[in-house]
Amino acid sequence: MKGSTNTRAVLLFIGDELLIGQTENTNAGWMARKLVEWGIETIEMRTLMDDREVIKNAFEEAWEKGDLIISTGGLGPTNDDMTAEVLADFCRAELEFNEEVFSWIKEYKEKQGQSVNSLHEKQAVLPTGLQYFRNESGTAPAMLYEKGDKVIVALPGVPYEMKELLTDKIYPRLKEKLISDNLKTTTLLTAGIPESEIAGQLEDFENQLPKSLSIAYLPGLVRVRIRLSARADSESKAEEVLQKYSQELQSILGDAVYGRGEETLEGVLGGLLKKNNLSLATAESCTGGYIAHLITSVAGSSDYYKGSVVAYSNEIKKGQLGVKESTLEEYGAVSEETVREMLAGVCHKFQTDLGIAVSGIAGPGGGSEEKPVGTVCVAVGRPDDYRLETYQLNQNRLLNIEKSSLLAINMLRLFLWGD
Amino acid sequence: MKGSTNTRAVLLFIGDELLIGQTENTNAGWMARKLVEWGIETIEMRTLMDDREVIKNAFEEAWEKGDLIISTGGLGPTNDDMTAEVLADFCRAELEFNEEVFSWIKEYKEKQGQSVNSLHEKQAVLPTGLQYFRNESGTAPAMLYEKGDKVIVALPGVPYEMKELLTDKIYPRLKEKLISDNLKTTTLLTAGIPESEIAGQLEDFENQLPKSLSIAYLPGLVRVRIRLSARADSESKAEEVLQKYSQELQSILGDAVYGRGEETLEGVLGGLLKKNNLSLATAESCTGGYIAHLITSVAGSSDYYKGSVVAYSNEIKKGQLGVKESTLEEYGAVSEETVREMLAGVCHKFQTDLGIAVSGIAGPGGGSEEKPVGTVCVAVGRPDDYRLETYQLNQNRLLNIEKSSLLAINMLRLFLWGD
Repeated sequence: MKGSTNTRAVLLFIGDELLIGQTENTNAGWMARKLVEWGIETIEMRTLMDDREVIKNAFEEAWEKGDLIISTGGLGPTNDDMTAEVLADFCRAELEFNEEVFSWIKEYKEKQGQSVNSLHEKQAVLPTGLQYFRNESGTAPAMLYEKGDKVIVALPGVPYEMKELLTDKIYPRLKEKLISDNLKTTTLLTAGIPESEIAGQLEDFENQLPKSLSIAYLPGLVRVRIRLSARADSESKAEEVLQKYSQELQSILGDAVYGRGEETLEGVLGGLLKKNNLSLATAESCTGGYIAHLITSVAGSSDYYKGSVVAYSNEIKKGQLGVKESTLEEYGAVSEETVREMLAGVCHKFQTDLGIAVSGIAGPGGGSEEKPVGTVCVAVGRPDDYRLETYQLNQNRLLNIEKSSLLAINMLRLFLWGD
Repeated sequence: MKGSTNTRAVLLFIGDELLIGQTENTNAGWMARKLVEWGIETIEMRTLMDDREVIKNAFEEAWEKGDLIISTGGLGPTNDDMTAEVLADFCRAELEFNEEVFSWIKEYKEKQGQSVNSLHEKQAVLPTGLQYFRNESGTAPAMLYEKGDKVIVALPGVPYEMKELLTDKIYPRLKEKLISDNLKTTTLLTAGIPESEIAGQLEDFENQLPKSLSIAYLPGLVRVRIRLSARADSESKAEEVLQKYSQELQSILGDAVYGRGEETLEGVLGGLLKKNNLSLATAESCTGGYIAHLITSVAGSSDYYKGSVVAYSNEIKKGQLGVKESTLEEYGAVSEETVREMLAGVCHKFQTDLGIAVSGIAGPGGGSEEKPVGTVCVAVGRPDDYRLETYQLNQNRLLNIEKSSLLAINMLRLFLWGD
């Protein structure tokens, strides 16, 4: 129901591999977030066996409940793939060999240097009267069935195939039919401020929001995503309202906002370093290489990132990073004095403009009364111009590592913005 | 139906946060795998809104379909938590303040240095006639309802609370009622051999398996989990069959098997290093610190791990790891000659017995005709006694990093086993 404020979706995830836990269903969360962006409410998700009756019943029940049904899986060429057959049954359509879809499959396989076989012929036997969409990264096409105000979409289960098809091919069709042009959303990404503090800062802002605008918080470990959605009489009006309030939001939260949409902290930091032609090295103790991993997960990071010393012992801190024996004795390995020396040491050694240095107690062992598990000291900046911070985290080992890494990267981002 | 070969489970995941994609449902896959281990077949999963009618209908439909219903979520103290009310309705029970559960909550909060409030009192208002199980890591207790052959279990949604309660408190009760003593399972973990090759090696083994034994493959990026399940007339007989065939399986696959159950490659490597009192350092180029991260994700790794040099430029490879200019010129940064010198360099510098060194092209840029994206060279061992390997991977950047890291750790494991 285009323009309606409540298009309701039911998602069906088909495949025995999901029910035995062989494959993690990463499609569910991604798809739910996409649909929220598009103003569609997911009212139920089901994970189903590769069983004709089960799948058919699920489509029938979903058809009763929702305006949009999206299924994933069961579109492959083998016998346990039965979504096409069930859809033919459900839509009262014939199964027929589809020349066009077969030519897509053939071209795809040829691009891979392979040829088609009889299984691929089976994969092109599809219900008549549906719309098909070419899969650029695999053999299974997407299918779309419309009746009245309702739509069924069947997608392959492989995450990147599903994502490409849904956003590139299916979205334009949904936009015509189910998605209001008059809804616009944007997501501001913040780091370093807890959700409760953000909510406090935004109290006045929220109180004066017009009814056409809604705000939602999606908190993560260090980051909070703030989604603004504007609904108006026209597309341009919605865009205008969204612009106005997202700018206001940004000016209230200031440099806590590091980006929009799908940006990452490490990607934003990389962009800053590249733009300013600055080089970076890291010196890690408790984070054990995870900061280096985050930074190097960005393609092209070798342009600005020189490397890291993971110093997991005091000997390495002294021998490789030039931390003074007296500093370690007087202040300990987990201290602002030590990370400051680690920072200077790694910048000097790797001849970089900037550094990040971290030392802490990730746990579960190693804590003391004075410095309990979760104590983490961070230094960022230049050898002679730096910021120091001591955090007290209270997660488990892996989350303490992840959280201190993100906090450290965020500190350097803020250092550069303030520079 | 204890002893039956087909206890059927329906899983209900309750919470709006799952339907908007705010929280990833990591419980689903974990729970499904646990149930398979216990010989229980999951026939459906549903993710549901925080809506009384919706939840009640889902319990009713699940009761028709399954022998065991497990729900997560909706047990908190706020108004959108309504699992307890729905269960009272479903089980035709009264809601009553439960003194014992309240004392658990009180003790838990006191341990955290906090006191209870009126919301916690609400959380202790529970249906009569159900069994309650104490949550050691939170306030929401687990609930269990039995009628005839069927069982409903309601668990909190927080993953570690759910996992503790299901395995420590609920499992013993399910074992009495629904889980056959005569089913035993074990999972062998292999690394470095693709599933197709394992299947080839196990062809004869599979052909001579008795009917009482089943085998399943769960392939991952570098690792394949092989699950053996034995069903017999008695517990001891099942155990005996499982022992016999898992030993046979292990002897066929040899040192490709690195562990059992939930062990990790980095954990097994850590155990080997500790046992043999050996120290380790790493030198990473394309993996960018991910190997260091995996190794230091193991608690207690500072006993054997000294640290890493992440050398993301040729200057660092030369200056910090002593790779010869002539080697880089003649063979390139991605070559077995270079990683051999990186290995020797880092062992010398960090004064360790052993090293891992990796250099490669993670992509998407940086490839050439001769060395395409995905080319990765690995050296493991001692400066004068090492193994070299060149891999050709074909994943995206992040998966190439993850895969080469796991392959490198596995190479050192095999080196130590062969030592």
